[in-house]
Amino acid sequence: MNDQEFILRVTCPDSLGLVAKVSNFLNEQNLFIKDSAHYGDPITKKFFMRVKVVSPNQKINKENFDKTFSVLAEEANMDWSFHNAILKPNTTIFVSKYSHCLQDLLYRASVDSLKINIKSVISNHPDLEKIVSDYEIPFHYIEVTKDNKSEVEMKMSKIIEGDNIDLIILARYMQILSTDFCNKYFGKIINIHHSFLPSFKGAKPYHQAYEKGVKILGATAHYVTSELDEGPIIEQTVDRIDHSKSPEDMEIIGRDIESITLAKAVQYHSEQRIFLNDNKTVIFK
Amino acid sequence: MNDQEFILRVTCPDSLGLVAKVSNFLNEQNLFIKDSAHYGDPITKKFFMRVKVVSPNQKINKENFDKTFSVLAEEANMDWSFHNAILKPNTTIFVSKYSHCLQDLLYRASVDSLKINIKSVISNHPDLEKIVSDYEIPFHYIEVTKDNKSEVEMKMSKIIEGDNIDLIILARYMQILSTDFCNKYFGKIINIHHSFLPSFKGAKPYHQAYEKGVKILGATAHYVTSELDEGPIIEQTVDRIDHSKSPEDMEIIGRDIESITLAKAVQYHSEQRIFLNDNKTVIFK
Amino acid sequence: MNDQEFILRVTCPDSLGLVAKVSNFLNEQNLFIKDSAHYGDPITKKFFMRVKVVSPNQKINKENFDKTFSVLAEEANMDWSFHNAILKPNTTIFVSKYSHCLQDLLYRASVDSLKINIKSVISNHPDLEKIVSDYEIPFHYIEVTKDNKSEVEMKMSKIIEGDNIDLIILARYMQILSTDFCNKYFGKIINIHHSFLPSFKGAKPYHQAYEKGVKILGATAHYVTSELDEGPIIEQTVDRIDHSKSPEDMEIIGRDIESITLAKAVQYHSEQRIFLNDNKTVIFK
Amino acid sequence: MNDQEFILRVTCPDSLGLVAKVSNFLNEQNLFIKDSAHYGDPITKKFFMRVKVVSPNQKINKENFDKTFSVLAEEANMDWSFHNAILKPNTTIFVSKYSHCLQDLLYRASVDSLKINIKSVISNHPDLEKIVSDYEIPFHYIEVTKDNKSEVEMKMSKIIEGDNIDLIILARYMQILSTDFCNKYFGKIINIHHSFLPSFKGAKPYHQAYEKGVKILGATAHYVTSELDEGPIIEQTVDRIDHSKSPEDMEIIGRDIESITLAKAVQYHSEQRIFLNDNKTVIFK
Repeated sequence: MNDQEFILRVTCPDSLGLVAKVSNFLNEQNLFIKDSAHYGDPITKKFFMRVKVVSPNQKINKENFDKTFSVLAEEANMDWSFHNAILKPNTTIFVSKYSHCLQDLLYRASVDSLKINIKSVISNHPDLEKIVSDYEIPFHYIEVTKDNKSEVEMKMSKIIEGDNIDLIILARYMQILSTDFCNKYFGKIINIHHSFLPSFKGAKPYHQAYEKGVKILGATAHYVTSELDEGPIIEQTVDRIDHSKSPEDMEIIGRDIESITLAKAVQYHSEQRIFLNDNKTVIFK
Repeated sequence: MNDQEFILRVTCPDSLGLVAKVSNFLNEQNLFIKDSAHYGDPITKKFFMRVKVVSPNQKINKENFDKTFSVLAEEANMDWSFHNAILKPNTTIFVSKYSHCLQDLLYRASVDSLKINIKSVISNHPDLEKIVSDYEIPFHYIEVTKDNKSEVEMKMSKIIEGDNIDLIILARYMQILSTDFCNKYFGKIINIHHSFLPSFKGAKPYHQAYEKGVKILGATAHYVTSELDEGPIIEQTVDRIDHSKSPEDMEIIGRDIESITLAKAVQYHSEQRIFLNDNKTVIFK
Repeated sequence: MNDQEFILRVTCPDSLGLVAKVSNFLNEQNLFIKDSAHYGDPITKKFFMRVKVVSPNQKINKENFDKTFSVLAEEANMDWSFHNAILKPNTTIFVSKYSHCLQDLLYRASVDSLKINIKSVISNHPDLEKIVSDYEIPFHYIEVTKDNKSEVEMKMSKIIEGDNIDLIILARYMQILSTDFCNKYFGKIINIHHSFLPSFKGAKPYHQAYEKGVKILGATAHYVTSELDEGPIIEQTVDRIDHSKSPEDMEIIGRDIESITLAKAVQYHSEQRIFLNDNKTVIFK
Repeated sequence: MNDQEFILRVTCPDSLGLVAKVSNFLNEQNLFIKDSAHYGDPITKKFFMRVKVVSPNQKINKENFDKTFSVLAEEANMDWSFHNAILKPNTTIFVSKYSHCLQDLLYRASVDSLKINIKSVISNHPDLEKIVSDYEIPFHYIEVTKDNKSEVEMKMSKIIEGDNIDLIILARYMQILSTDFCNKYFGKIINIHHSFLPSFKGAKPYHQAYEKGVKILGATAHYVTSELDEGPIIEQTVDRIDHSKSPEDMEIIGRDIESITLAKAVQYHSEQRIFLNDNKTVIFK
């Protein structure tokens, strides 16, 4: 028996009968639905669908599927993709000096609990090279000064293109990326922000949280847009604190929720569960 | 436009192509899928599906649907139902002396956040009559002694049959029901147990939790079977405690999680989201 | 044996030896420490202490204590109070049309799980009178128009003074109170805001949350100041949501966390656990 | 200014005036209380106190303190200790094949967010040597067969004595330790069990959880006693699951709560926050 699994993803203007149309098509192709989810947004009038299929008796022919499905897709004005479910995105991780998220991602990928293929780590500081090389992954140190930003991003882009990167993870990377860079890789850059967005955007969110006296800390993983800390939210996690915690305590407490929130967001992305819905996300868990 | 919504529920032996078969059938009936979820259990080999449909252009004809779907259902050996989505189950609540869950259910039903039709409250103590009558719902006081158990259950059954009851909620009812009663209404009785089952079955779970020194309290809503506190689990909630809490403190802390857990379980049931899967539940949220 | 318990609360400029000084004083008065907590804020340089004492062999003489402690208090520049631990604050609740928080507070007070003495409920709408009168508590309907605001607040103040009110709870009261009113009762007014402050201040926070696509809903109880939704935060609670929830769904989901958050804040206040620390709170749980 | 901090820990039979007695003593020694917590257990009649002190003007003389405090301690029948607050316990970690808890502990210790001094890792399998040696910590592989158990434990004891070990962490160590070993190091061995104890003791707790159909997974860190999975509970954490999760899914989901629960328990221990209270713990956070 053939146990290949493929994932069909569809986004299109919402209309009646889409679920049946897709299900029917899959059935005709002898592709059996193992898992499926769909959502019609009442405001944006967009339809989203994710289906995991198997073909128990024969190998799935992607080329053939793509050609046949295109006809249906065109009729319904669909954005769509059809990929092997075990496809691991080629990934690069941007870091600065904080190691907790990096360490966590490297470990999860190494034991295959996170299905990403980490091709490189890029940093504006040399500090984290040891951790990365323990995992036998290339570490690129690219110094950032106030004048060489565009040069830096060109170097990054070169690595990204060279490694055929599908996913860029900002694991507490402390530099702001240019609008061009953000736009070029839109939907492919995931950032972890150490607050419960939209509270405490920008610099030093733990200090902001301390000043405000909140009783719960948060972390937010989101796609990066050119507007700082404003991109579509993927995942959020919180932890309880009290008056006795200093910004430095919060920093330490926050590490766990930052790591977990980022790892979950990356997992959803790598499992092709996330759809962009204007400035928001639809996620089928 | 007609905005009637119906819910189709299906349980049957798992096999390939079931999702497409059902989707296709609905499409042929001009019923459009608004919401759907399915699950195939790899161990029990059972398939579960819940679909919410609309028929924008004409009133849904249930009789007609039932007749037509029967053919497909028989082929696939399906247990199934097809009901109006706004159907509220006729409900009776059994209580003793604790009022928090009762109060919570009465309030939620009264503001329509819980879609149940509370026909009566039955108690082995007269204490809670005032609360119930404030909501203008009949209160039946049926005294329980060690000798009159079967007589009591006959009286209960009479009320249940008389009111055409679909759902019996044990809202901290402190009497054990007979095996016959449990079997007769299996799948229709929801109990709240004030522990994180399977820990601390039976009497005085908060005292058991105190003795054990656990750091987290739990509450469990489950369907009732003849084996005490062993029925299929529907929902569980927890709250954090520390060494300083006495069993009496836990009692008070626990009230909130008991009320919320029970209300969620009743909500899932009333929205036809729960399927029995041997001694477990499948719940489509 | 005498089981009276008193609570001593102290706020003063931080300095070394304060804990020992207070403990020592209590010892000399034959008052035994049953429970104590203290905190020195490294930024504001303020010291906070809450001690629960018992006097097993004789009745506690508050007048005598007050006189004797004044001397020590003056030396250390202390704000302080010494009250019977079972003292219930006289409370009034302001509401508009939403009933869930009101209902929850009335119920908790009625079963004595919340130690407040509800003297009245004041509303700018007549809708919730029935719920209040079921608990045999006076309900004051005071209509608010765009022109009679100061007159309304005068009527409110009259009720507040007449009932000797210690605590005003805004249980989803949908009117903005004047700066004068907020200042007059500063530290005595607790509001529930249905967002995770400082996110989503002002009107329609669930709609704001929906627009932003957050993955977690929050509720915040805080002391009221003249700046809208900016007062010292007492308690926050969150619940997880996903893309499929409309603002109306959030409204219903949010009710539980609003009720629980407000009840906890009121409990901490009634148990004399909260200290104001500039624009923040110190809470000894 | 001298910023040395010491922690005084006291356990003794409960009686009136203990807090004042200790506070007073510290004051006389010119030791100022920075942080303090105490608890009198109403059932075991034991008193527990933890005080963090500073001596701003002179170095703390431990020998002198110990001699002077002994007098008071003897009178009140106290078990007590007085240690530098930054004392890191010498620690050994026992593992088998699962790496997540080990990896997490090594990382936290390496960035000093966990204040332990990891002297060695001992394993009955060679698999995890690489991870350990990346951190430049000795890895001892001691094969376990069904016949060499006592020999193995002798080897372990030798390493433990040689390294002057204060704390043994069982980070998913899959062998049962002998009663003698458990007794010898009682109060010094922390285990992580991958269930919400007392549910699902013994082998394969995730399979047990799956069979039972629970809706929440748990992990429990506890001191080890000779009765399997029955020692005093230190910390518990939970995560929500649903019907679709297999035991293998739970295994992966559970890793995060196992790592976090164990790390918290070790932190409380290393910060001298935990007191044994018969078969339970008192923890001052």
